[in-house]
Amino acid sequence: MNQAPGPGAPLQLQPIGFVSTDVPDDEVRWRRREMVSEIRILPPFVDCLAGLGEYSHIFVLFWLHRVEPGTWQPRVHPRGRSELPLTGLFTTRVGNRPNPVGLAVCELLDLKDDTLRVRRLDAYSGTPVIDIKPYDPYDAVAEPRLPEWWRRLGSPAST
Amino acid sequence: MNQAPGPGAPLQLQPIGFVSTDVPDDEVRWRRREMVSEIRILPPFVDCLAGLGEYSHIFVLFWLHRVEPGTWQPRVHPRGRSELPLTGLFTTRVGNRPNPVGLAVCELLDLKDDTLRVRRLDAYSGTPVIDIKPYDPYDAVAEPRLPEWWRRLGSPAST
Repeated sequence: MNQAPGPGAPLQLQPIGFVSTDVPDDEVRWRRREMVSEIRILPPFVDCLAGLGEYSHIFVLFWLHRVEPGTWQPRVHPRGRSELPLTGLFTTRVGNRPNPVGLAVCELLDLKDDTLRVRRLDAYSGTPVIDIKPYDPYDAVAEPRLPEWWRRLGSPAST
Repeated sequence: MNQAPGPGAPLQLQPIGFVSTDVPDDEVRWRRREMVSEIRILPPFVDCLAGLGEYSHIFVLFWLHRVEPGTWQPRVHPRGRSELPLTGLFTTRVGNRPNPVGLAVCELLDLKDDTLRVRRLDAYSGTPVIDIKPYDPYDAVAEPRLPEWWRRLGSPAST
């Protein structure tokens, strides 16, 4: 570790790549569990991918670029369904949050040169990617406890 | 979703809270699997926590504030162990990366007012937290495939 930047240093991100998918924006929500996308990594970061293909799963962190800054609400109805109780924003994965960063656990289908093909990345085409992290057994929680409303989502999925 | 910000809009984060732990910085690496920390959420974001206590596990995203910007290397030895092969930065969780954002799957031990008590947050005291997300069964991958070197880590842990 090096010297810390000053306390006033901005917490600023840069895209390391961009998402590309044939799934139209308005279908991402419904198809996110099986949709396939590509991530094209920008040249300065391609060498960081060496060996990634040995993992079956990765975390993808991405910037929710369609969210208008400063418009988040502290309590939301999960998935906008008014019959479900208002709940704290941090109990959901609603994209409109103080820091609009998305997180997806994806299956890594293929890696070739600068392009990853992944399943289950719930991001629109054109979304900036900010990090790729490997998924390991310590990330798997066998039986996480959940709110009662989560069970009522029917097709259970993070909102 | 709202109108997108302009393409040149900066990808800028803000702290939503800060980590506090009794574990000294130089012991975090070794104790990260069982260490207990607190996260104190800043006033504007406290109401976003409503209902979070119903989850047993959460993702914590945090800003690796000790990393000096621009000093990452595309290939690294996992955990700095030279007997392990050089591998792409994105195959590891080394903190010195293009976007110094950390990710931890934590057990949520307690939530009271503005303070979360969590287990397994591998962050130094004083680390800015940028997001809290709920962990659900779709985040659990039963048997992820891993590189051979990962198995050689002995006490297997993300570096």
